[in-house]
Amino acid sequence: MTPTLDNVYEMDRHDPLAGFKARFALPEGMIYLDGNSLGAQPVVARDALAATLDQWRDELIKGWNQGWFDAPERLGDLMAPLIGAQAGEVIINDNISLNIFKLLGYIADSQERSRPVILSEGGNFPTDGYIAQGLCRLAGFEHRVLPEGAALSDYVDEQVAAVVLSQVNYRTGRQRDMAAITAEVHKQGAEVIWDLAHSAGAIPVDLNGCGVRYAVGCTYKYLNGGPGAPAFIYVHRDHQDGGWQPLSGWHGHAAPFAFDGDYVPAQGITRFRSGTHSALIYAPLEASMRLWQEVDMNALRQKSLAMGDLFRNCLADLIKAEGIEDITPPHAERGSQVALIHPEHGYAIVQALIARGVIGDYREPGLMRFGFTPLYLSYEDVWQAARHFREVVEHREYLEPRFQVRSEVT
Amino acid sequence: MTPTLDNVYEMDRHDPLAGFKARFALPEGMIYLDGNSLGAQPVVARDALAATLDQWRDELIKGWNQGWFDAPERLGDLMAPLIGAQAGEVIINDNISLNIFKLLGYIADSQERSRPVILSEGGNFPTDGYIAQGLCRLAGFEHRVLPEGAALSDYVDEQVAAVVLSQVNYRTGRQRDMAAITAEVHKQGAEVIWDLAHSAGAIPVDLNGCGVRYAVGCTYKYLNGGPGAPAFIYVHRDHQDGGWQPLSGWHGHAAPFAFDGDYVPAQGITRFRSGTHSALIYAPLEASMRLWQEVDMNALRQKSLAMGDLFRNCLADLIKAEGIEDITPPHAERGSQVALIHPEHGYAIVQALIARGVIGDYREPGLMRFGFTPLYLSYEDVWQAARHFREVVEHREYLEPRFQVRSEVT
Repeated sequence: MTPTLDNVYEMDRHDPLAGFKARFALPEGMIYLDGNSLGAQPVVARDALAATLDQWRDELIKGWNQGWFDAPERLGDLMAPLIGAQAGEVIINDNISLNIFKLLGYIADSQERSRPVILSEGGNFPTDGYIAQGLCRLAGFEHRVLPEGAALSDYVDEQVAAVVLSQVNYRTGRQRDMAAITAEVHKQGAEVIWDLAHSAGAIPVDLNGCGVRYAVGCTYKYLNGGPGAPAFIYVHRDHQDGGWQPLSGWHGHAAPFAFDGDYVPAQGITRFRSGTHSALIYAPLEASMRLWQEVDMNALRQKSLAMGDLFRNCLADLIKAEGIEDITPPHAERGSQVALIHPEHGYAIVQALIARGVIGDYREPGLMRFGFTPLYLSYEDVWQAARHFREVVEHREYLEPRFQVRSEVT
Repeated sequence: MTPTLDNVYEMDRHDPLAGFKARFALPEGMIYLDGNSLGAQPVVARDALAATLDQWRDELIKGWNQGWFDAPERLGDLMAPLIGAQAGEVIINDNISLNIFKLLGYIADSQERSRPVILSEGGNFPTDGYIAQGLCRLAGFEHRVLPEGAALSDYVDEQVAAVVLSQVNYRTGRQRDMAAITAEVHKQGAEVIWDLAHSAGAIPVDLNGCGVRYAVGCTYKYLNGGPGAPAFIYVHRDHQDGGWQPLSGWHGHAAPFAFDGDYVPAQGITRFRSGTHSALIYAPLEASMRLWQEVDMNALRQKSLAMGDLFRNCLADLIKAEGIEDITPPHAERGSQVALIHPEHGYAIVQALIARGVIGDYREPGLMRFGFTPLYLSYEDVWQAARHFREVVEHREYLEPRFQVRSEVT
């Protein structure tokens, strides 16, 4: 039975996370289903940034001793409980591309280059593979691709140093069995780097519990750190002092202010810093991370799944009638997005929705992605988004010429 | 003759750059001589950042098509005239450490790894050498150090791929002959990467005129971009399409939104991007770069030298009497700082000055650095700073126990 507006009002009344919505600055009249690309702005972000601007103005160079220098570790410790890590296992620094480069180089160095192959799955967000290729070319390693759907066991052998995998696929939203795969890769003597870009802040993540040694992820999607906010890097506490990471800038040095001639890596997670970081960008992210400390991740997960189901239930008949393919995985394998494919008109449907204030995004070929962020979406929002979707499709609104024009969107 | 207060009032009245001071937000009662570590805040920085926060809040993901994505190139084009480069030869991206890594890897790849040695001078800021070591270790190259004072010609041979040199030494403020050295290195078939951290915005720089192919530099010192603002990377237009740079993230891809499996480097300077950058940090930097478009670099140079001379003239008798060593280079070789050495009490003198609101900085061993930033310092400021210095030294104020306590300062 198609859910009614009364049904969703009732769901909103019983939503334990409903109070969070007021803590985000959302534009009037927009239903934002693209928090899996760029998260909405926490209200506190503005004051946090203003305070750091005051600090730059008034304290100038002294600001580095007043919270700027330690921000990667301090924010990493705030991130840790959200991904099942301990304090001292995470820093926030650089971006995902650079952090994967660090980890691949670190693993190769720790293994004394005894395994010359880097494997990355074809379904990763492309930058993960690009970075692996760049590192292999510089280090004289070989890059191999794990095709989508292929069995990992056919590809991980004694030649493989590390494999880069996504916990949640950025296109399909499909979640992998992190514990089982990690154990399988370790059994082959290889390492696995998990990309959590579409899982951190989207689902409960348990890195320690899954036996994960290396992971990276971003903070500008589900974690609301701001456009291009710095990424995180996780290294299990028992695997932090193995070798060098190659982006060996002074902030990862054991004694950065001694100005020694030779690089000596810092002990612990600090070794995974590179050079000077921007102090300003940590301010809104820290404000957001503090908000996230209040979030019950199990409640988040329940609402995420319920919103995805609501959206699909509202559209079940339409999806069937229009021949739209719903590739959204079942609960156990789902991230926090719904993925629908309309090979011919997917792009135009997304554009028509955007014109109505319903922001999803599009990925070639034919894929419409709708991200569900439980902190700032209500069930009513989801219901209204589905209504717009129905109207756009039933009225063939997407055929309007203005919705055919292609433009680049990240 | 020691300059008088009347002398400096007169100098300020005739200063063509005097109008810039009001465009910086400076703390009351502070004389800031550490703009060579972290530049002061342009008044426009705050509104620029607020506008980008509005954009994040209201436009969300669309912001990437409204100036965020192109910021590295757009700001690079604003930087170009300040360093003697052309549009399309500079981007603003990542930090100096990462940019040196990119250039070293790019040069090695362009040379097809035919030269296995990376040389960096011992007088560089340490991160330059650390990064060279990290790259060498990953790539199987050898890192060699050019000792301070050694002849470059004794070290650059057919084994050397590239040498990393500073145009202006971060400790002494000594400026190298960039044109002559570049020609000498090129004659040996090697490449040179110039670190402009202490020259961009401090002195007129003419990269094209000096035949420079590769350079990096920072924007948070003399260029007022904010704490840890992103760095720039310069590659001469004839040398941009030679090989891969190893930090081959998706933003440096020829078609980043095609989501292809294989990395294909973008043509031109865009190849030197890595992964996703923070949109927020470009806002205050862009505001500052626009201010810098108005600056007459020759007037800046004249005032910089005049301020350094004024400071030293005010203290000439004291320096002599106290046995302080003045290692500030002559005009032709000077950056924009004065360097004084007091082996025993240098640290404490700097601390005592800071307590009086005169902010310089200290570098081991014994070195007191005073940076002169012509846009927001008056001649009177310099005169007053010298007066404080005299009082601190003559009254032995630096012997107070509170000035002996060591703390880390970047």
